[in-house]
Amino acid sequence: MTTRAPERATPPWIRPHVTALHPYVPGEQPQEEGWVKLNTNENPYLLPQVVQAVAEAAGDALQCYPDPVCTALRAGLSARYGVPPEAILCGNGSDELLTLAVRVVAGEGDRIAYPDPSYSLYETLARIQNAFPVPVPLGPSWELPVADLAAAGGRLTLVANPNAPTGTPYQLQEIETLAGSVEGLLLVDEAYVDFGGQTALPLLARHENVLVLRTMSKAFGLAGMRLGYAFGAPATITALRKVQDSYPVDRLTQVAGMVALERFDEVMANAQEIARRRDRYAGILRQRFGWKVWPSATNFLLAEPASRAASEVFAALKARRILVRHFAKARVERCLRISVGTEAEMGALVEALEGVLA
Amino acid sequence: MTTRAPERATPPWIRPHVTALHPYVPGEQPQEEGWVKLNTNENPYLLPQVVQAVAEAAGDALQCYPDPVCTALRAGLSARYGVPPEAILCGNGSDELLTLAVRVVAGEGDRIAYPDPSYSLYETLARIQNAFPVPVPLGPSWELPVADLAAAGGRLTLVANPNAPTGTPYQLQEIETLAGSVEGLLLVDEAYVDFGGQTALPLLARHENVLVLRTMSKAFGLAGMRLGYAFGAPATITALRKVQDSYPVDRLTQVAGMVALERFDEVMANAQEIARRRDRYAGILRQRFGWKVWPSATNFLLAEPASRAASEVFAALKARRILVRHFAKARVERCLRISVGTEAEMGALVEALEGVLA
Repeated sequence: MTTRAPERATPPWIRPHVTALHPYVPGEQPQEEGWVKLNTNENPYLLPQVVQAVAEAAGDALQCYPDPVCTALRAGLSARYGVPPEAILCGNGSDELLTLAVRVVAGEGDRIAYPDPSYSLYETLARIQNAFPVPVPLGPSWELPVADLAAAGGRLTLVANPNAPTGTPYQLQEIETLAGSVEGLLLVDEAYVDFGGQTALPLLARHENVLVLRTMSKAFGLAGMRLGYAFGAPATITALRKVQDSYPVDRLTQVAGMVALERFDEVMANAQEIARRRDRYAGILRQRFGWKVWPSATNFLLAEPASRAASEVFAALKARRILVRHFAKARVERCLRISVGTEAEMGALVEALEGVLA
Repeated sequence: MTTRAPERATPPWIRPHVTALHPYVPGEQPQEEGWVKLNTNENPYLLPQVVQAVAEAAGDALQCYPDPVCTALRAGLSARYGVPPEAILCGNGSDELLTLAVRVVAGEGDRIAYPDPSYSLYETLARIQNAFPVPVPLGPSWELPVADLAAAGGRLTLVANPNAPTGTPYQLQEIETLAGSVEGLLLVDEAYVDFGGQTALPLLARHENVLVLRTMSKAFGLAGMRLGYAFGAPATITALRKVQDSYPVDRLTQVAGMVALERFDEVMANAQEIARRRDRYAGILRQRFGWKVWPSATNFLLAEPASRAASEVFAALKARRILVRHFAKARVERCLRISVGTEAEMGALVEALEGVLA
């Protein structure tokens, strides 16, 4: 454009609370080659059969809209998880389903409770909706504050199990107690459950107010395709679907999800391999560098360097083209969150740390 | 599940206005073969080079998150449309961008104005947000009611140009007058512009309150991939991005969009072929069957059967596995909306109509 309209800093049509928002900042996604990327909890083990199926499906009617309600994919999820299709909703990543849950349950000023520290998107989503975010501190070793969460009075309560960025798993009994004591909807975000957590799916039969979220971005290795799903009471699922866009999941993503489900045992075997590697490298970080490493049931480790500030170690690793995650946030600012990658990537990390910490 | 929690019809955590919603109903998407599908304005001419590029990209790191801000794709859009990258936002179909615009601009009870009849999703989105929908009647031949729309006092005004389901194109001058007279944001939904409409992109240089939406679902033939984009003032784009999910457009969709843009001339040549076919079949419907067919600048025709009710013709065609669209809605209930497909599909339609109307 050769000319430009005079621009005000804050156009009056933007709602004031949106202008005031600090956006959620996802981990860096360098698009060029050559990085060891241990910062966004991706999974190196995408099954080649999934890639093959997606490539073949590219020739199949991409000019036509996808199935708006993911009928075949939901049938596959139903068979795998023992939940009826009308209790399942698929979305453009579990992030979309989190957004939908907030919009369906919380109006302006309504309370949304969640443990702190946890997935920082929860607070962002509450603020986007102009709802009232209520962070509830985790215990000293990241224990779930069940009574405090219930007392927080959330119309919506969000709990990641296992938790991120701490990696902490919570017991089904704790989640059930919480389900029975919160006033509103309890959303259990099980993004990392396949690496060692306990699922809340059995609670669906006993607690109508439980919504379980899953993603194919972690154990299934499909972060690049964007596929999440929710399991919950049909009345809740119906409400979420009413608010969702018409065609949330594209044709190829539906295919990828179905093929990944068909190979569920291989997916789980890969997840277990990552879990074993996680535990081995937790030991290495502790023993070789004297770091404090928290117990993890996920595909990442929360680790506190012994002698140097986490932010310095983060920068020194980045200079060597190794990305981990550092959160400038109370209680975790002294830690790094390190995704568990391939054996070669973890070896490169340890080798780099030997240089950085020498 | 062997047992089921007792289920109330309306769980108390669902916001009352969501419970009251009637969901938007998209056109039928039969997933089996053998249908002549002229009901959702898809485009039969997807370029084979796009399919090829998507198939090849399936092998490229689907386990990694996509670029959250579509850097390369926005660069391609910037070069093609002469709009700077910071004035462009990509989304999971233009439906997602419509949703974001509503959420960013309109709070509960705020007025959202739009012509009627138009894309029925506009009313649905207003109701989802618990905003106040203000439909403004089009003129007797679907003329844009510029003064009435301005007087409607929308914090957000939504105009499809060309309009759907009428197919009507509006002049740039009309859109500019509207931009200068509405109080808030004017969203111009140009989903069909490549089939013969006038774009509002030149207004971006003069009117900060204009947001132009495009989609790759129509002229670009990528409905199955879900890609839309918005052009607007950087302050508006920034606000939309703050409210958007982190990774809205998956890796393969970003590739598809970039390759389709590189072949823009071929895409436009296909769109022009569809436009010529549209005009030819408009003539056939008028002359052979005596139907009233409205002038169209889109890839569909709004046609009023002469002797039989539109709903009956719809049903008779469906029985022959030909899908067109019928809206049970005032002023268009006597009409069918017919997408322009291949020559063979349009021939099959005419042949079927000869049987149905005999």
